[in-house]
Amino acid sequence: MEVEIKNKTKSRKEETEKTKKKEKNNISELRQDLVTGDWVVIAVGRAKRPEEFAQLERAEATDKDDIENCFFCEPEKTGQEKDVLIYKTSQKDWTLRVFPNKYPAFSRGKVPQSLEEGPYFAMTGTGYHELIVTRDHYKHLALMDVVGVAEVFDAFQDRYLALMNRKSVNFISIFHNHGKEAGASIAHPHSQLMAIPVISPYIKLELDGSESYYRSNKQCVFCVMSEYESEAKKRIVYENDQFVAFCPFSSRAAFEVWVMPKKHSPYFERITQDEKMKLAEVFQKALYSIYKALNNPSYNFYIHTAPCDGKDYPHFHWHIEILPRTATWAGFELETGIEISVIQPEVAADFLKKQI
Amino acid sequence: MEVEIKNKTKSRKEETEKTKKKEKNNISELRQDLVTGDWVVIAVGRAKRPEEFAQLERAEATDKDDIENCFFCEPEKTGQEKDVLIYKTSQKDWTLRVFPNKYPAFSRGKVPQSLEEGPYFAMTGTGYHELIVTRDHYKHLALMDVVGVAEVFDAFQDRYLALMNRKSVNFISIFHNHGKEAGASIAHPHSQLMAIPVISPYIKLELDGSESYYRSNKQCVFCVMSEYESEAKKRIVYENDQFVAFCPFSSRAAFEVWVMPKKHSPYFERITQDEKMKLAEVFQKALYSIYKALNNPSYNFYIHTAPCDGKDYPHFHWHIEILPRTATWAGFELETGIEISVIQPEVAADFLKKQI
Repeated sequence: MEVEIKNKTKSRKEETEKTKKKEKNNISELRQDLVTGDWVVIAVGRAKRPEEFAQLERAEATDKDDIENCFFCEPEKTGQEKDVLIYKTSQKDWTLRVFPNKYPAFSRGKVPQSLEEGPYFAMTGTGYHELIVTRDHYKHLALMDVVGVAEVFDAFQDRYLALMNRKSVNFISIFHNHGKEAGASIAHPHSQLMAIPVISPYIKLELDGSESYYRSNKQCVFCVMSEYESEAKKRIVYENDQFVAFCPFSSRAAFEVWVMPKKHSPYFERITQDEKMKLAEVFQKALYSIYKALNNPSYNFYIHTAPCDGKDYPHFHWHIEILPRTATWAGFELETGIEISVIQPEVAADFLKKQI
Repeated sequence: MEVEIKNKTKSRKEETEKTKKKEKNNISELRQDLVTGDWVVIAVGRAKRPEEFAQLERAEATDKDDIENCFFCEPEKTGQEKDVLIYKTSQKDWTLRVFPNKYPAFSRGKVPQSLEEGPYFAMTGTGYHELIVTRDHYKHLALMDVVGVAEVFDAFQDRYLALMNRKSVNFISIFHNHGKEAGASIAHPHSQLMAIPVISPYIKLELDGSESYYRSNKQCVFCVMSEYESEAKKRIVYENDQFVAFCPFSSRAAFEVWVMPKKHSPYFERITQDEKMKLAEVFQKALYSIYKALNNPSYNFYIHTAPCDGKDYPHFHWHIEILPRTATWAGFELETGIEISVIQPEVAADFLKKQI
């Protein structure tokens, strides 16, 4: 369908060339995701100024509400000292620790078991659900130094490598919820890892999209994207020689930022020590720019990396997506999967860049 | 991928038969969407009792905040009297009116115009964005009588038929946001219609899923679903001879309800007068059960119907999805597209049924 529309509109290119520039400033845009073919709307008619987004409900509000009884501040409080999987830097002077979630969405078991009912199919939620907790209750990732952020990525990689070959694990999701509106139920900064038996439907869209782009263009779609962004400099938030942070052309939310390695690689878990430091620099700067620009908003970030189901995904390209909770997805978004954003990614990137 | 996993687990069926029943009560379930192949998690380990959901932020809170200056109470206040497209029952004693959104996400224009940039593709957001407003500021759909609800569906159908053949329109989205958490910025009850040039990605998933199910099983997947639900009676909320309301097996949120015609039809706009009354009865009862059970929660509902792009979709089956905002989708859901629900749909349906 997307392709058809593309051709339909392309054939009208000449006649519209004149009015294009004028219209571009007054009318909403339907932007197509280069990878999945999905659509987003940049609704200029409902546009907000970048400054207005800073009046969102603050993540800070939840930061201070439970320091007295915080389960994440001291390992003893969770009653899970013996279950800790990783301590960095050391057990005594820990700066980060990893342990299993006490209330897991996925729990240990050898293989997923079939649970059929009539025409439906289900299986047991077999897998792993772990928490990656940094020490300081108040210092969230945007405020940490590069070494601290690199340590977090280090822990992600350690646990990824430890779990990726387990029998029930075909996909590993690593994500972070910051602030109540982003679904964080505990204020103390923590990331989560879920190792699960099924491939995420959204990753599947990106896998299929990048494979089909490769077949047509003999190029990785993410490489095309990061090279174009570095060159065009319209949506760059920050970059160094190995990583680039930019607001995607078809952003699903205002101030969305993607952090992408410039070198092609499908697999986050193969990142080197040197790359990790470079990633930490770009990632922390991107997060800090959002923190400053939107006055500590709620946000989620997550790593999109290839599945670990034993297959190769040479056309995929891992990256991190940071999604500030700047919008409430309503009926239209939930029905259609087309998100409406009220700021142009170019304007958002420009505003973010100024904060660094 | 989904099919592969299905086979993998199916072959282990015999050995697991014994432990199945016991495990089913203690461990999360990964349920597969019969249509799209997507997954949801029913996280029993994090389960809440149905009564706990009634403590969500109330939609009521916003109901009373702007009656004095409500733009939707009287046509004069919008300054759009001359733009009104439909008055029901009459202009003077109107019970419902339809008019263009003053701040449209999609705006009128003959054909979408191409807006390319480097490797990216976009087009102008050409289309129609209309509001369907019922008269009483306080009486939302769950509290209306069947005749009032049927009138709303009547207006949906009228506008659908008026717009479906316009040049720039390939898909029509009809939806309703109730309460602040569901994205309603105006408290006065109103539905929205957006007629747009592109096919919604979520509808595309359902179109593809239902087509592929038809090819394998020579049956409509939605017919299979509604017949099974009516027979099994495990997830029924309410039904009459023509429509059924049930909590879907792979619910994406607690207390999600689908309302589906029992007779196969891809196209909502072909509904008859008699069917409309039957639909209104089942739909109003379903909505009322959610209103009572969760103490007037925020919710969205929307119609999933076949595109109007001139093609036939004989394997599709229109239906309405009601999604109470019982959960905050966090990093995991946003990353993977796998939703975590904390109540079994069977328990939710049972609780809803008792409210009617």
